[in-house]
Amino acid sequence: MTADSLRFGHTLLRQADELAQFTEDAPRLTRRYLTPQHKAAGEYLIERMRDAGMTAQFDALGNVVGRHEAVDPNAPVVMTGSHMDSVRNAGKYDGLFGILTAIACVKDLHDRGARLPYSLEVIAFGDEEGVRFGATLIGSSAMAGTFDTAWLDKKDDAGVTLRDALAEFGGKPDAWQDLDRRGRNIVAYVESHIEQGPVLLNEGLPVGVVTAIAGVSRLRVAATGLAGHAGTVPMNARRDALTAASEMVLEVERYCSDHSGLVGTVGKLSLLPGAINVIPQDVEFTVDVRSGDNVLRHSAVRALAKAFAEIARRRNVKVETTSFFEADAAPCDSMLQSELAAAITALGVPVRALASGAGHDAMVFPPVCPMAMLFVRCGNNGISHHPDETMTAEDAEIATRVLLYFFEHFEPAH
Amino acid sequence: MTADSLRFGHTLLRQADELAQFTEDAPRLTRRYLTPQHKAAGEYLIERMRDAGMTAQFDALGNVVGRHEAVDPNAPVVMTGSHMDSVRNAGKYDGLFGILTAIACVKDLHDRGARLPYSLEVIAFGDEEGVRFGATLIGSSAMAGTFDTAWLDKKDDAGVTLRDALAEFGGKPDAWQDLDRRGRNIVAYVESHIEQGPVLLNEGLPVGVVTAIAGVSRLRVAATGLAGHAGTVPMNARRDALTAASEMVLEVERYCSDHSGLVGTVGKLSLLPGAINVIPQDVEFTVDVRSGDNVLRHSAVRALAKAFAEIARRRNVKVETTSFFEADAAPCDSMLQSELAAAITALGVPVRALASGAGHDAMVFPPVCPMAMLFVRCGNNGISHHPDETMTAEDAEIATRVLLYFFEHFEPAH
Repeated sequence: MTADSLRFGHTLLRQADELAQFTEDAPRLTRRYLTPQHKAAGEYLIERMRDAGMTAQFDALGNVVGRHEAVDPNAPVVMTGSHMDSVRNAGKYDGLFGILTAIACVKDLHDRGARLPYSLEVIAFGDEEGVRFGATLIGSSAMAGTFDTAWLDKKDDAGVTLRDALAEFGGKPDAWQDLDRRGRNIVAYVESHIEQGPVLLNEGLPVGVVTAIAGVSRLRVAATGLAGHAGTVPMNARRDALTAASEMVLEVERYCSDHSGLVGTVGKLSLLPGAINVIPQDVEFTVDVRSGDNVLRHSAVRALAKAFAEIARRRNVKVETTSFFEADAAPCDSMLQSELAAAITALGVPVRALASGAGHDAMVFPPVCPMAMLFVRCGNNGISHHPDETMTAEDAEIATRVLLYFFEHFEPAH
Repeated sequence: MTADSLRFGHTLLRQADELAQFTEDAPRLTRRYLTPQHKAAGEYLIERMRDAGMTAQFDALGNVVGRHEAVDPNAPVVMTGSHMDSVRNAGKYDGLFGILTAIACVKDLHDRGARLPYSLEVIAFGDEEGVRFGATLIGSSAMAGTFDTAWLDKKDDAGVTLRDALAEFGGKPDAWQDLDRRGRNIVAYVESHIEQGPVLLNEGLPVGVVTAIAGVSRLRVAATGLAGHAGTVPMNARRDALTAASEMVLEVERYCSDHSGLVGTVGKLSLLPGAINVIPQDVEFTVDVRSGDNVLRHSAVRALAKAFAEIARRRNVKVETTSFFEADAAPCDSMLQSELAAAITALGVPVRALASGAGHDAMVFPPVCPMAMLFVRCGNNGISHHPDETMTAEDAEIATRVLLYFFEHFEPAH
């Protein structure tokens, strides 16, 4: 692809750079829900949407909603977009790319005077990451009818409730029910997102079709041994909670490596008493297990809990394994997957299907409509949620052309 | 042994209970150097010493020094005792027992009008644990001529220097050199101490003869991998610092279990970023390796550093292993060991020789005189530095009789 042919790519990367200026802690990028930086980013996107011929405004929860209308006011609706909030010290493409690429598609259609047999709604969700209030996917959940009223009373670190922050932002905390898209003739939700992993990178592919958003099980594991002086307790008389936990950590790695389609991570681990010269008595760690296949995930959780118990028994240590979070996989719609694949093929790019290990706004949409996702290659070893997150103009170009092809060829069933 | 015959045991346990009342944080037992509780415990011991016919007073650094004089004022001196400070939330016997048992011996000699061919100095060291000022063995180091003047400027958590705390206590910070016992005709230092481990307990023995106080090597190990999203990075593409560190922790355990005479402990471990859904990038942990045999210990440190490097290389993780503390083993004097063994044998108890994994006041005495230690069985699985530390009246009785036999039969060479 020549530089000349990057009609979308260069613009998109420049827009991502511009949006990265709306940050709470420059030179880092952090943009939490309902902050002045959220407002500024939303206004930037509204301007881009209007420039693309859309109507656009903030809704009651601080999402930006742009619409490219069909000729027929009763035509069905296709939704697309992603989130405009970020984690702390984030990358520039996570979330934002899915909004910008959709606006680019609409602008191209608008500039050509093209109309679609459906209205296209482009959403910039105000909260997906959940950094500020500890509830994730707030914007998309409201649209899917799964917003939890109790969230309005959640507080940020400064003690400000979501309700008060929304009012201050100019939103309408009690109008969240108006956002519910169920029964509103929505026929598809299609989201484009940076992969946040190295699969496409390692296979040399610019884009991929997501098969499912992985389900997640999270366990808290507490191993209890017996503290003792590091110098005085012989090795064979120890009940060391850390060596027991170390075996368990390696078992998570072994099991998930041996079973294709699973990933498992011990991301937090703490120990007590935590002194150089004392044998650890208590170790607590978390396990995060994910799979696009719910059965595989549940089997893994059972097998790990059993293995932990065996390790503990052999070492004369106690272990307690508690599940504290479960979310089943959200499979992507097979028809939409094949239409995305057709668009990729039309551009002469090989089709790669892959599961999404991370959660995305798309995962809440099944109660509303069929959903699908397009992944875009993530550079730098697939690193994301980090300033080193990268995307090339070439890949942004291809992804946008795939999405445009998809939009132009999508025919809602009647 | 009948209850009737426990002429020392019951008194010693009662005295340990009484001393436990001098605590900073009742109902827990914490007695740091130069606190009012240190003063009160010292005064209690001075009273017991005087009751046993000794002269007794605090010295310039807050140690209590009691003397049972020989007839000949030029007779050599034997030293005994232990420390009266404690760790936080301590047991009642660690340190204190070695002081109380020595006073009991002197009281018995005194009550019988027995005199020894040497003066016996019973010391209650003010600081061994080092909890308050971060320097350990302050009292015994001064007597061995290894007190470091810089310690006087060390501060406690409240910002009080050792110098000011000593002055406030009634000590003389600048008179520490007067405590130096080198060249003062000291012929032996013999310390009795609770084992703080389960070796004697597991073998059903009340006492043991210490062969050496173990040497210690301490390492800081930093493993650096690559952070990544727990859901999006396939198992085979990970550079997980925690799974690498877990292998290293198990290697410490394996190596030290396979080599008799070694113990190795990972007591501290921390990781970053430490989030449930992020692959750990940085893990730092400590290794504490001990042995009575310096060559064995040095070989272990080399072998572990090599094994860590191999684990890291295989996992594409970086590792840095740094030694930050080295102390060679302090062997106990073989003549004194055999005399303690003879005393144990005289009481009809089997002799068990064992190394001390923990450090003790005795370890600093080699520049002054030959030293030796008697260990007393530690109940409850050998737990120490903990309220569950226990000793039976029977064991206290036997240990005191062994020590008394030793004192009565010890003949200083001329």
